[in-house]
Amino acid sequence: MAKISPLAPKRFPKIPAIAGVKLATAAAGLRYRSRLDVLLVETAPGTTVAGMLTKSQTASAPVQWCRKALKRGAAQGLVVNSGNANVFTGKAGEQAVTKTVNGAASLLKCPKDNIYVCSTGVIGEDLPVQKILDQLPNLHGSLKSNDWESAARAIMTTDTFPKGSVRTATIAGKKVTIAGISKGSGMIAPNMATMLAYVFTDAKIPAKVLRTLTTKSVDQSFNSITVDSDTSTSDTVLMFATGQGATHKKITAASNPHLKNFSKVLNEVMTDLAHQIVKDGEGASKFIAVTVTGAANDAAARRIGLTVANSPLVKTAIAGEDANWGRLIMAVGKAADRVNQKKLKIKMGGVLIANGQGAVKGYNERPVTKHLKGQNIDIAIDVGVAKGKATVWTCDLTHDYISINADYRS
Amino acid sequence: MAKISPLAPKRFPKIPAIAGVKLATAAAGLRYRSRLDVLLVETAPGTTVAGMLTKSQTASAPVQWCRKALKRGAAQGLVVNSGNANVFTGKAGEQAVTKTVNGAASLLKCPKDNIYVCSTGVIGEDLPVQKILDQLPNLHGSLKSNDWESAARAIMTTDTFPKGSVRTATIAGKKVTIAGISKGSGMIAPNMATMLAYVFTDAKIPAKVLRTLTTKSVDQSFNSITVDSDTSTSDTVLMFATGQGATHKKITAASNPHLKNFSKVLNEVMTDLAHQIVKDGEGASKFIAVTVTGAANDAAARRIGLTVANSPLVKTAIAGEDANWGRLIMAVGKAADRVNQKKLKIKMGGVLIANGQGAVKGYNERPVTKHLKGQNIDIAIDVGVAKGKATVWTCDLTHDYISINADYRS
Repeated sequence: MAKISPLAPKRFPKIPAIAGVKLATAAAGLRYRSRLDVLLVETAPGTTVAGMLTKSQTASAPVQWCRKALKRGAAQGLVVNSGNANVFTGKAGEQAVTKTVNGAASLLKCPKDNIYVCSTGVIGEDLPVQKILDQLPNLHGSLKSNDWESAARAIMTTDTFPKGSVRTATIAGKKVTIAGISKGSGMIAPNMATMLAYVFTDAKIPAKVLRTLTTKSVDQSFNSITVDSDTSTSDTVLMFATGQGATHKKITAASNPHLKNFSKVLNEVMTDLAHQIVKDGEGASKFIAVTVTGAANDAAARRIGLTVANSPLVKTAIAGEDANWGRLIMAVGKAADRVNQKKLKIKMGGVLIANGQGAVKGYNERPVTKHLKGQNIDIAIDVGVAKGKATVWTCDLTHDYISINADYRS
Repeated sequence: MAKISPLAPKRFPKIPAIAGVKLATAAAGLRYRSRLDVLLVETAPGTTVAGMLTKSQTASAPVQWCRKALKRGAAQGLVVNSGNANVFTGKAGEQAVTKTVNGAASLLKCPKDNIYVCSTGVIGEDLPVQKILDQLPNLHGSLKSNDWESAARAIMTTDTFPKGSVRTATIAGKKVTIAGISKGSGMIAPNMATMLAYVFTDAKIPAKVLRTLTTKSVDQSFNSITVDSDTSTSDTVLMFATGQGATHKKITAASNPHLKNFSKVLNEVMTDLAHQIVKDGEGASKFIAVTVTGAANDAAARRIGLTVANSPLVKTAIAGEDANWGRLIMAVGKAADRVNQKKLKIKMGGVLIANGQGAVKGYNERPVTKHLKGQNIDIAIDVGVAKGKATVWTCDLTHDYISINADYRS
């Protein structure tokens, strides 16, 4: 087991029961011995669900199942396993999903397309599905409402700490709760839903509205992080609303102003979960925020930010605590989006380093070098074109990334 | 000075004089002491030139000059310096180019837009142009026709060996020579002309025809390699035709069948130079060829190939000599181009590992592991869509890449 990331939070958050959500975990021995590797979640009848899935062309069998099930937007069960991704496993892989769905639907007494299935781990090996099926009755018998940390642990692969987040929001004055768990450490890349994350609320929100809110939040959180530019075959974010909390004003449209706080808090939970994935990035020693302003539009700002965040030369410079802003100039330039070189401004740790005509007069590298010795690195880039802005997050690229990935078969 | 790449060729090739080309080098002390860092090339009046330049939005001042000069397509001089890239240097950077152009044009007695200027090295620092100007008269006085190895050395930065290539071709039965030099080691990325390469021929070819031939060859050579996915601000390929060799049939169109051999040999020279850049990739211990077949078209095949070649998880697996074909499945999937998962085939070292339904029956990993212990790694991927194909080249990602880039300011 790898040492815990130096960027890990001090402890797993205290997540209360969410009305309408029950969890259970087991160690089925899929790949690791004596390690939790199966999670069953039961959600109350009437639960709506929205999701975003990997855009990979070699998406896993479970992702392909979820894509179909999400069309209906109803959920009563979720089965997740770690250790084996059930990717590129042909007919056997599809059958494994079918068997899991059938098993869970029969125990939870619900339609099959109310069951969601996710797998994460090694690619291209047959999933030993019988080991999961054997655990289902025990899991069903041990469902309880507040074992969030075990749930977060059961979905880990190369993760070094379990990831959870919780906030309360209000809808028209009524308190609702939003809680979630996520996993991810390597094979984390932009422009797709990223790795596994499950978010639950006791609010009552129609599936169509939930889709709009989820898409918006995922774009600003999971789709704004990158560890290594490699996109997983299994990336899945699922957002469940049980409607079992305090009764609140009926919601029928995403534009309802009563959703303003909920939407903001959902963003916070998803961003917290996304940040934890970056902080557990393979080999990470620094957490890096790249804020891009002055772009043609917000989407362009995000693309430029991700180009900077994916640059191995930028990431190694930060690992080396080297205030090498020339590499930022290079990385901004290679983005396909427009940059006005004559107005381009670069800041690190809040210090203006360069603007249009090169380094600023009297630029003193010392405070920047001091900033780079810390764990939280801030890079701000204004590309001088228009008003688009975005922030993306990544980690540095260190010897440990190479050590982890030249050995581990993932 | 870094140790020489284990993938370096045994020796620099013997390149003869090319009629109409003279070279001279000097150590101007721009960044390194006692190291060649300026190259002057004189080409005969009437020389045509074509080129491809970086598409970076933060292109260097010299690149911006070359872009204008190339419109005319006539060349009599080329000045290259290493150690400083003259990028993001504002007005001072533009003035440095102007002074260099004026100095060279006056010595070589030619129009200013017949002079090409290139710089490579550190970004964002003012170029000490006076040191170059001071060397120009001496360089002009010492021009000679066959010091190709010194020329290749003078343009090196983090390169560990000088790169050159030479072939003879025929145009309608008449022998012509094609020779070139290149540099590059890090900040090497796809879809743009890559780093510095200069190719010379004594054939007589109009600029318009030269442009067509150059674009085609660059696409299949320099634009088909990647070291680290980071695109330089200075990438430049220039192709000069002096017309001073043996008299051959007049060429007026790229479609002339007499150009078939010339075009093939030009491809060989450019591919050789491009391969040498990959073989000097920062930290490289393996040379990797990725051949993609069955894509929607050749361009799609190249994009998929480059996606695989840029995947840090693929590159670290190969560094670790791990036959981790699951990462190939992942990398193929993250390309934006269409892949038929049910027909997808993967080979390493010529061994069929996986096809459509997962690993092939009785797959024996031993010969693949043996192949991975060698220096030359072959990956073949058929994506099962149509008939597009392409080969791209890269190197592995090792601890030495991190060591080099967490220290060196480039």
